[in-house]
Amino acid sequence: MSTNAAVRIEHDLLGELAIPECAYYGIHTSRALDNFPITGIPISSMPDLVRALASVKAAAALANKQLSLLPDDKADAIVEACYEIRAGRWHEQFVVDVIQGGAGTSTNMNANEVIANRALELMGYSRGTYARLHPNEHVNLCQSTNDVYPTTVKVALYAASTGLVEVLQALRKSLDRKATEFADILKIGRTQLQDAVPMTLGQEFAAFSTMVEDDERRLIEAMKGLCEINLGATAIGTGINAHPDYSALVCQHLRRITGMPLLTAKNLIAATQDVSAFVELSGVLKRIALKLSKICNDLRLLSSGPRAGLNEIGLPPVQAGSSIMPGKVNPVIPEVVNQIAYEVIGNDLTVSFAAENGQLQLNAFEPVIANSLFKSIKHLRAGCLTLTSRCIEGITANVDGLKRTVENSVGVVTALSPFIGYANATLIAREALDSGRSVHELVLTKGLLSSTELERILCPSVMTRPNLVVWKGERNENR
Amino acid sequence: MSTNAAVRIEHDLLGELAIPECAYYGIHTSRALDNFPITGIPISSMPDLVRALASVKAAAALANKQLSLLPDDKADAIVEACYEIRAGRWHEQFVVDVIQGGAGTSTNMNANEVIANRALELMGYSRGTYARLHPNEHVNLCQSTNDVYPTTVKVALYAASTGLVEVLQALRKSLDRKATEFADILKIGRTQLQDAVPMTLGQEFAAFSTMVEDDERRLIEAMKGLCEINLGATAIGTGINAHPDYSALVCQHLRRITGMPLLTAKNLIAATQDVSAFVELSGVLKRIALKLSKICNDLRLLSSGPRAGLNEIGLPPVQAGSSIMPGKVNPVIPEVVNQIAYEVIGNDLTVSFAAENGQLQLNAFEPVIANSLFKSIKHLRAGCLTLTSRCIEGITANVDGLKRTVENSVGVVTALSPFIGYANATLIAREALDSGRSVHELVLTKGLLSSTELERILCPSVMTRPNLVVWKGERNENR
Amino acid sequence: MSTNAAVRIEHDLLGELAIPECAYYGIHTSRALDNFPITGIPISSMPDLVRALASVKAAAALANKQLSLLPDDKADAIVEACYEIRAGRWHEQFVVDVIQGGAGTSTNMNANEVIANRALELMGYSRGTYARLHPNEHVNLCQSTNDVYPTTVKVALYAASTGLVEVLQALRKSLDRKATEFADILKIGRTQLQDAVPMTLGQEFAAFSTMVEDDERRLIEAMKGLCEINLGATAIGTGINAHPDYSALVCQHLRRITGMPLLTAKNLIAATQDVSAFVELSGVLKRIALKLSKICNDLRLLSSGPRAGLNEIGLPPVQAGSSIMPGKVNPVIPEVVNQIAYEVIGNDLTVSFAAENGQLQLNAFEPVIANSLFKSIKHLRAGCLTLTSRCIEGITANVDGLKRTVENSVGVVTALSPFIGYANATLIAREALDSGRSVHELVLTKGLLSSTELERILCPSVMTRPNLVVWKGERNENR
Amino acid sequence: MSTNAAVRIEHDLLGELAIPECAYYGIHTSRALDNFPITGIPISSMPDLVRALASVKAAAALANKQLSLLPDDKADAIVEACYEIRAGRWHEQFVVDVIQGGAGTSTNMNANEVIANRALELMGYSRGTYARLHPNEHVNLCQSTNDVYPTTVKVALYAASTGLVEVLQALRKSLDRKATEFADILKIGRTQLQDAVPMTLGQEFAAFSTMVEDDERRLIEAMKGLCEINLGATAIGTGINAHPDYSALVCQHLRRITGMPLLTAKNLIAATQDVSAFVELSGVLKRIALKLSKICNDLRLLSSGPRAGLNEIGLPPVQAGSSIMPGKVNPVIPEVVNQIAYEVIGNDLTVSFAAENGQLQLNAFEPVIANSLFKSIKHLRAGCLTLTSRCIEGITANVDGLKRTVENSVGVVTALSPFIGYANATLIAREALDSGRSVHELVLTKGLLSSTELERILCPSVMTRPNLVVWKGERNENR
Repeated sequence: MSTNAAVRIEHDLLGELAIPECAYYGIHTSRALDNFPITGIPISSMPDLVRALASVKAAAALANKQLSLLPDDKADAIVEACYEIRAGRWHEQFVVDVIQGGAGTSTNMNANEVIANRALELMGYSRGTYARLHPNEHVNLCQSTNDVYPTTVKVALYAASTGLVEVLQALRKSLDRKATEFADILKIGRTQLQDAVPMTLGQEFAAFSTMVEDDERRLIEAMKGLCEINLGATAIGTGINAHPDYSALVCQHLRRITGMPLLTAKNLIAATQDVSAFVELSGVLKRIALKLSKICNDLRLLSSGPRAGLNEIGLPPVQAGSSIMPGKVNPVIPEVVNQIAYEVIGNDLTVSFAAENGQLQLNAFEPVIANSLFKSIKHLRAGCLTLTSRCIEGITANVDGLKRTVENSVGVVTALSPFIGYANATLIAREALDSGRSVHELVLTKGLLSSTELERILCPSVMTRPNLVVWKGERNENR
Repeated sequence: MSTNAAVRIEHDLLGELAIPECAYYGIHTSRALDNFPITGIPISSMPDLVRALASVKAAAALANKQLSLLPDDKADAIVEACYEIRAGRWHEQFVVDVIQGGAGTSTNMNANEVIANRALELMGYSRGTYARLHPNEHVNLCQSTNDVYPTTVKVALYAASTGLVEVLQALRKSLDRKATEFADILKIGRTQLQDAVPMTLGQEFAAFSTMVEDDERRLIEAMKGLCEINLGATAIGTGINAHPDYSALVCQHLRRITGMPLLTAKNLIAATQDVSAFVELSGVLKRIALKLSKICNDLRLLSSGPRAGLNEIGLPPVQAGSSIMPGKVNPVIPEVVNQIAYEVIGNDLTVSFAAENGQLQLNAFEPVIANSLFKSIKHLRAGCLTLTSRCIEGITANVDGLKRTVENSVGVVTALSPFIGYANATLIAREALDSGRSVHELVLTKGLLSSTELERILCPSVMTRPNLVVWKGERNENR
Repeated sequence: MSTNAAVRIEHDLLGELAIPECAYYGIHTSRALDNFPITGIPISSMPDLVRALASVKAAAALANKQLSLLPDDKADAIVEACYEIRAGRWHEQFVVDVIQGGAGTSTNMNANEVIANRALELMGYSRGTYARLHPNEHVNLCQSTNDVYPTTVKVALYAASTGLVEVLQALRKSLDRKATEFADILKIGRTQLQDAVPMTLGQEFAAFSTMVEDDERRLIEAMKGLCEINLGATAIGTGINAHPDYSALVCQHLRRITGMPLLTAKNLIAATQDVSAFVELSGVLKRIALKLSKICNDLRLLSSGPRAGLNEIGLPPVQAGSSIMPGKVNPVIPEVVNQIAYEVIGNDLTVSFAAENGQLQLNAFEPVIANSLFKSIKHLRAGCLTLTSRCIEGITANVDGLKRTVENSVGVVTALSPFIGYANATLIAREALDSGRSVHELVLTKGLLSSTELERILCPSVMTRPNLVVWKGERNENR
Repeated sequence: MSTNAAVRIEHDLLGELAIPECAYYGIHTSRALDNFPITGIPISSMPDLVRALASVKAAAALANKQLSLLPDDKADAIVEACYEIRAGRWHEQFVVDVIQGGAGTSTNMNANEVIANRALELMGYSRGTYARLHPNEHVNLCQSTNDVYPTTVKVALYAASTGLVEVLQALRKSLDRKATEFADILKIGRTQLQDAVPMTLGQEFAAFSTMVEDDERRLIEAMKGLCEINLGATAIGTGINAHPDYSALVCQHLRRITGMPLLTAKNLIAATQDVSAFVELSGVLKRIALKLSKICNDLRLLSSGPRAGLNEIGLPPVQAGSSIMPGKVNPVIPEVVNQIAYEVIGNDLTVSFAAENGQLQLNAFEPVIANSLFKSIKHLRAGCLTLTSRCIEGITANVDGLKRTVENSVGVVTALSPFIGYANATLIAREALDSGRSVHELVLTKGLLSSTELERILCPSVMTRPNLVVWKGERNENR
């Protein structure tokens, strides 16, 4: 910092440090800035986290006021400062790096210092006059990083996850619209990339939709795990330096402030060291990533070509595909979603390593867990949005091409198998492939079924659903 | 196979093959044996899977009989053969490799062939006379690998998971007993490996117990996902070659046979390609692994020493620790559980890769998913058993040593902070550490609190729970 | 063990234990059997490891004899027992579980006990008379598990890796043969699954070959890391209880016995705790897995169809593909290789977790590292063998189909771009796609190039290599 | 963009788009900005990448000039623009998101457009007058994203890796200084967290240093893989639209510009689709991460306490540790390095997924590979810097405490084992532990060794190195 800039002097157990006069943060935050010059990305890049910090600190002040642990003027100033932060002010003062040592202490102290200094202003004092209102003794009263930080991260992840649920819903509805639009377009389904049996393109998109819906449900379930908090645990879960009634009161206030169905964990010592709510959320995000990636893989396969590929569907062109190949258009939107998925899967591993390395009464690696989860949710959300609006919405079907592949298909022989037997059907299939002749023609030539029987069996609307009943009587079990 | 051994000749689309006369499996299984000589470990190593195959095939035969798709004699013979397998017979005939291509077809055909040949015997025919009873046309009727295999794997995993729940419960109860035994033993809790504030050793074990209980709950939840099956989907989920009523009937029969609360998936096309029930179970197994590993890490830390370590607890010695260091005893049981955990985490990644690579209407990589999950469950179960009986049960507390660390501790200064202020408390702490003098002595010397006050604040039963209320009146807010 | 079986009594620091009289292993192994009932798979399943144990123990005995630390008769008996094991005898006595606590102590002691008892027999004494020859004092002389075990694992992995290099070479040669066979077959290359520009099918297979060759080279490099051993380090690398000359001598003997270019690590303390040679090998195995998986993905794509897929190549049919779809043939060999790859990638993660969790002077988790690596190598080797002989060798080209896609292709417009400009080429490409007309026809119609020019530019042998020189003069830079 | 801002209109195959007049980027970049609003982090956040883009484009222009494919004025303007970018100008114009679809096309086109527009200015034309100098036809001449992008990423990673090597060296030297400083401080080494045998604290730090040195070497080796480039490959490796001499010339120019020992890959088709140089680098970064994490785990263990931990060393305090516990100081620097390591390991998995999913002639997921690698290198570098300067440099030894643990130790019994036998030594060890008496005292009491013998054997300088020779004569082999 420039030497002639206005500064104030603050103290801690290591000594004195000059803080820029304009800063709302204080000595702890300053030291953390020096200690953790890692990513250059401040925690303000996670606005949900900053707002959640303010919510938790406000709830604590209200509980402390109610318990007469904090005089009204101090409590009120703290709460007002917190509400300003919730409204979006002072975020630029949350400057510590997203990757930091200290188990979140620097994030908690950044909040304590900013809130203290803003509250001091609101009380008519100047920043840094901590004798009037102290970051640790008043803002952090009845609290420890070890209950404030995990609770804050949960509150923030709940908000972020809510946003992800919304875009998953929008994606699903978009897939539903396509399922309806393509409901009557017959195609050949594939297993192991080999031609299998007929289905409709609408069924294909409906399956995508069902899979996304399933993920929404799981995400909502995992969000419940975020509602179990450990405020009142203080340092290690025993509640040292907290009032016996604090835990219940602060949860009540925070429930009201956030609108979340929050509960205090039954065993606060377990809750303080256990990060499995984060592990579970990360697992669900990985599950979503795997599913989105699978869907995008399929979209890229189905739109491959245009001439030397499957070319069953067309993705809307959104940019020129190549710097060298004129006219080429690439599936860039599914591709970016694939890459987001790979990143999310990587983030899940980071979370696993951090979780496994927790020791004794605290997991010191929650900051990297939080950072990984916030990135995953943010990027998944962005990916779903662009996938929905710039890809799914504009997908078209290659109706003619799809019709030809069904007409051409050897896979329809499966539908004949119950009537001509698996062995005969196998012979027909191999002969069709070797000779290039159609299944229809070969069955008639060999006199295995009449033309009428064939029509009934190979009717598209029959082949794409359970069909065995129709000719139950005709099936000769002793053939 | 030896050339003069008795053989029978079987046929398929690739031609003829000689099968050992004594074999209950047939040509498909034989080819698969040649194609997949990977691990040398046959699917019979997963007895839950073999039993589940028999359950599914029996349910299918009963449904087909009810629908008059299968004559009574054939259906009855199939069912009897299946019940023999469920009772433990013929498992040695399930010979295909646990790692196999073909999306489970070889496992399904191994079952179809063994069941057909055993049913033929029961009907009085010789093995291989498939004109009487055919592996595909009768045993596999209304079925495809693509609905039979995932359903079977789910049924088998449910059984295996039930066993895991049981040993987790036993582990938890063992931890609970230790929590009670150690309820009054005071120790210093640690955050970030640094001395923090007092707690009891009983609280430490109770936290372990709570964390295990939480995992039990999540595992039971994930088992619900195994109860949604896709029988009736056949090849790709459209139900081709199945009777419209088959899906409901077979589910009903399988529910009765297995005792599982089975349901048929709403969208069978989605259910046939989607492996997320497996991804979810794998995620829960990883979560359990991370938790067990964390607990074992702690047990190894707490029992480190005996002289140059924490030495807070003693693990029961179960074998000599060293080939060179006489008298050394190592924490070999937690160590083996750590390693099982690392293996389970690796298996979860295998599942993720397999899941992400599913294409279009089927995930061809379910065999490696199944193999990974069965290994994880088996090894976690073994790990919990040995951890409970050979380690937790015999843990002892180093009562004297723990007492000394609390008496010695600087961490108790935290309890004084609300009364003497954070800044004063910091000074005391640093002076205690620098001088080697006790916190108690320094506070008295400096006249910050009276001896009576100190006694009340530093009372162990007070320091290990929320304590702020006691001296609420004494706390000087304007200090 | 049955109560009336003959037993002998052995002792250790925990007391007495009855050992089956027929067993060559002793009390340590017996306790380990009870302690680690995890996988049911004994270390004898890794014959390379058992042979390597014998090699290391023989080398140690020879060095100790030379240093007069071990009398000739004892040394000679130990060496003879070791040579029997190297020749394949007594492997069934190596019974401890592949997953075990104790940092490999149980594996080392299993070897010490079997060798001691066999050597006792060779000296004319009965098993268990350890006063004559002791597992720890003589077989393990100048040794600790902590130098014997990592060295043994390295020696064994070197042997296993050598086998993997061989099958990679065979795979590469098979790919080379296909590259030659398909050298003149033109096709459309694809980027991002979209039609790009022409190439030959031979070039495609030659690229696979080059990629495999690159992996061979990296594997051979990583094997060098296995040649740095820490014999002589004993317990923690300081060499306590070893003779100062032992380290050099034992390395010399082991070099001769194994034929490996072994070296003693410069810093034995680092070498004893550092597992990065294993991490590196695991990384290379993952690299191989990723590459094989990519090649198998491509083979499955290129052979997709037969009618509704790319159908550029045919994989040899090796088994019927479906239990329900007659005539279906699936790419089961690439599929099994994909799954092996996913398993290897999972194993690499297990290794990473085990590596990260090593503490202070030793990594206690080497057994799971070893087990993961041996499985990966074994399965990769099996996968390469089946891929080469049952897939690559029999691949055929769909010559007619490939010809049609090139004639049809819009991608050739790229070759025209330097002559008609990127903008014109883009317009031609879009019009070709929209109208279904050929690029050739449109360029002529619009008079952009003459027929002769077109022929020269679109000549296949020109389009599949750097081509800009031919018409350098004709290119109008100021067009 | 605001409607009344000055704009210019650009065209591509999708139509027209208004571009801010002030922008040096053009229509492709603009569309990419709309398509990929994922992270909000532009590629300019990777300055090494932007500089490398300029280097590659300059080399291409120089080669094209030399081949008379590009007139001098255009080539010179392009080169000048590139040199400006290398010097740090125009980086803010590199705006596309670090996570993007399109296989790097948007990054390449962003460069083509910025360079074209800046070159136009240098030539005296206004931005957007592409008829004078075209992003694709001139700046991208003889190039494709598919050779430019991977080459650029390699050049940039080489520069970034060089920076990482430097900080690893500084870290190693710092560890060496501590090794020297602590060379004579005796302590008890530990295996499996249990007391083992004596060593010096200097040996412990020297081992850390050796492990870091080993990583430096591997990183330097992996950097060689970055020197094999595929310029001249163009779209798929066949070299379409490149001059036959271009490949050699552009490599020569780029070698000169970058100072890297660059080589053109032998098989450009393989080189264009194969990402294993990135996989390998990522593996080495993971290896470094695992090692740093292990070292930091050890530092945290060794400095645990101060009173209820090992307390062997002191880490320099860099910030107050707790918001609630006065005077607590935490190992925040090792903690942040641990977290960086977990992130790097996660990034490696992202790279693995991206690598495995490459299809046919190109890996479309190189952007997420590049982003992962740049993040890993940047954060590892920052972590090493802060670890060196804010932790290692200030580490102190707790000389008195260490001395006591050695005096107290039972582990010294190992040194006696060759003289009193493994069985006797075991008895002594157990009795010492049970009674609290010292090994020294017990051995004398039992008359197993004389006081003189004990002194010689237990001499610290003897116990910390290979020691068996000293009393070779005294060792009674037939005891």
